[in-house]
Amino acid sequence: MALIVQKFGGSSVGTIDRIRNVARRIHDTAKDGNQVVAVVSAMSGVTDKLIGLAKELSESPCERELDVLMATGEQQSIALLCMALHELGEKAMSFTGAQAGITTFGSHTRGRIHSINPTLMNKYLLEGNILICAGFQGATEEGMVQTLGRGGSDLSAIAIAAALKADVCQIFTDVDGVYTCDPRVVKDAKKIQTLSYDEMLEMASNGSKVMQSRSVEFAKKFGVVFEVRNSMNTNPGTIVQEETPSMEAVVIRGISIDRNQARVTITGIPDQIGYTAQILGALAEAEINLDMILANTAHDGYVRQSFTMPSNELGRAQAALKPVMAALGSTVKVETEAGLAKLSLVGIGMRSHSGVGATAFKALADANIKTGMISTSEIKIAVMVDESDIEEAARVVHRAFNLGV
Amino acid sequence: MALIVQKFGGSSVGTIDRIRNVARRIHDTAKDGNQVVAVVSAMSGVTDKLIGLAKELSESPCERELDVLMATGEQQSIALLCMALHELGEKAMSFTGAQAGITTFGSHTRGRIHSINPTLMNKYLLEGNILICAGFQGATEEGMVQTLGRGGSDLSAIAIAAALKADVCQIFTDVDGVYTCDPRVVKDAKKIQTLSYDEMLEMASNGSKVMQSRSVEFAKKFGVVFEVRNSMNTNPGTIVQEETPSMEAVVIRGISIDRNQARVTITGIPDQIGYTAQILGALAEAEINLDMILANTAHDGYVRQSFTMPSNELGRAQAALKPVMAALGSTVKVETEAGLAKLSLVGIGMRSHSGVGATAFKALADANIKTGMISTSEIKIAVMVDESDIEEAARVVHRAFNLGV
Repeated sequence: MALIVQKFGGSSVGTIDRIRNVARRIHDTAKDGNQVVAVVSAMSGVTDKLIGLAKELSESPCERELDVLMATGEQQSIALLCMALHELGEKAMSFTGAQAGITTFGSHTRGRIHSINPTLMNKYLLEGNILICAGFQGATEEGMVQTLGRGGSDLSAIAIAAALKADVCQIFTDVDGVYTCDPRVVKDAKKIQTLSYDEMLEMASNGSKVMQSRSVEFAKKFGVVFEVRNSMNTNPGTIVQEETPSMEAVVIRGISIDRNQARVTITGIPDQIGYTAQILGALAEAEINLDMILANTAHDGYVRQSFTMPSNELGRAQAALKPVMAALGSTVKVETEAGLAKLSLVGIGMRSHSGVGATAFKALADANIKTGMISTSEIKIAVMVDESDIEEAARVVHRAFNLGV
Repeated sequence: MALIVQKFGGSSVGTIDRIRNVARRIHDTAKDGNQVVAVVSAMSGVTDKLIGLAKELSESPCERELDVLMATGEQQSIALLCMALHELGEKAMSFTGAQAGITTFGSHTRGRIHSINPTLMNKYLLEGNILICAGFQGATEEGMVQTLGRGGSDLSAIAIAAALKADVCQIFTDVDGVYTCDPRVVKDAKKIQTLSYDEMLEMASNGSKVMQSRSVEFAKKFGVVFEVRNSMNTNPGTIVQEETPSMEAVVIRGISIDRNQARVTITGIPDQIGYTAQILGALAEAEINLDMILANTAHDGYVRQSFTMPSNELGRAQAALKPVMAALGSTVKVETEAGLAKLSLVGIGMRSHSGVGATAFKALADANIKTGMISTSEIKIAVMVDESDIEEAARVVHRAFNLGV
């Protein structure tokens, strides 16, 4: 008998009929002899409706009270899902975040999980219940409701799986798993059976938006094996787990695409100590999410720096840089370029295989695709290209590494 | 500086505009230099909508999960009301039943309050916050949500007032207070300024449905002074408090009307030990709410018993009595009469004033109104009349005791 945590998002429980479908899936998992704990989001649309009510009262509603308000969405879906399970003859009990023992801290509407006390959950599991837990929420030590922000339900599921020492955590979504590349772009992209946490992290933070990084990081930290799978069918999904020696045999696990990138280049910076701190400090204060950072000394003795960031942060970045530019002197110029996209090749096999970069850049050159800034990590090579080239770039690299079906 | 608990029902917070109005009233109370704790129900309609969803899933949804579901209604209104108060510049914090420290026990959907731990509420009151508490709900010792059933929000308000040692608990409703009689029936009925818990209890259980008996009983037990007042105006309401010596000066405080009463009379019962237990036992098992009970021995040596009950329970009562009648023998006959109504005269002054009954029955006889079964307590005289006579009966008795404006 395995203990399985299953996570269902808002669209999976978006109507009474869909709640019935989710109940049937949980029921089937239980019939196979497993203990089941399901973590669910609010019915899709409910959270937006609640925020709409709040916005009628206030332009910027208090975040503490937004949490109290929004948490009711999941509290409704857990109760309804339990009722659907009862109709199938199952014993099921709902748990709010607080009842599940999830203690949070940090800011309201973006709380962080401090710890989970699974005593009550274990008690009712032992009594033969299926547990239905509210995702996306917990309570502070004082008992005040706190929500976990975007992707919070995934995090709840992974954290509950860790606390209960579950055998696997199944994240149900609207895709069959993680693919070698976006199948809408690369027709023969195939589903990845198994990948490591680090590969998933690089894929997730590079545009394959199946899961938020913090959930994957949490799973890595506590060794929670999870599976990304489709709520609309029973196909096996993609297993994400700790690295195994055999995983290194594959050079590239997958390719991810990140559109809407922009580049800022600052030239003519006098080569004096501290300018990088000034520039990066100003951007950090404006909460710009920098991605690649490049600095070198030009032949004229001045320094040249480039950064990439999401396009929609470009305006804020320019505003934040203005005072710094003035302070650095009249030689300094800022150039910007939007309309870029990033191609990332990810795979732990890179560590032991050389020539990955050569293969990738040869494929891009053969296709006559101009490449820009490059960044690398131990298990990733990323390169900027014009947004108009990104799909062709993905296809040729995918083919070069024989990732297709 | 007084500490005032204010309770607002579902229609008072039924729309965003009404929530704004309630916020303004709380704001005004705070501006007058008072500490305020408000207890609110779910926005009207919300609870019914939630029950509708549950009924789509199950004919008889699990009561534990119904509690989890329904409790979200109040959780939404407390958050929204706090936001409205913030817009008025007030510091306000919401508390669910569990956060307010309300520990409950008993059955789900009709929980009872075990105790209130006001530590957190006191902490945040001291920090200068207005507190907005969810009515109708609490949590078991294990932290599981439990609702308090019909009239539960009144009970929450009274209990919170007791726990916080509030100076007064204001129950806002759609009437100006408790009247000497229903003003729709007796045109010159007047609002009662002050009455005792016992009088309120007799009025409440006799058809003046301003508040449920258990809330009044709770207030009596803990000496909570409460005021019934109108949420649509600022008129002073009716104060309900412990009896004072001066209260006895008034013979009759008020008259209440209870329509839709029925009578069952059983004749020809052989005079043997135990028949009353058999009859009452059968009716209790069928959960019939008996009101008056009368038994006497007729001249033929057989016993005759009569009971009154709400008309809509008559059918169930007849069914429940059938097997008992058969067991008691062939002489037994059951007669029923619907279309009755009960007039109750209530006042602690009765204890020290004689002749109340004589005055009342003379007034009824002068008006040619036929009276039926009578029951009395220390502070109440109740009499059954034909339903068609009840309004005239109320008017003549009201006049006989000079209760009008």
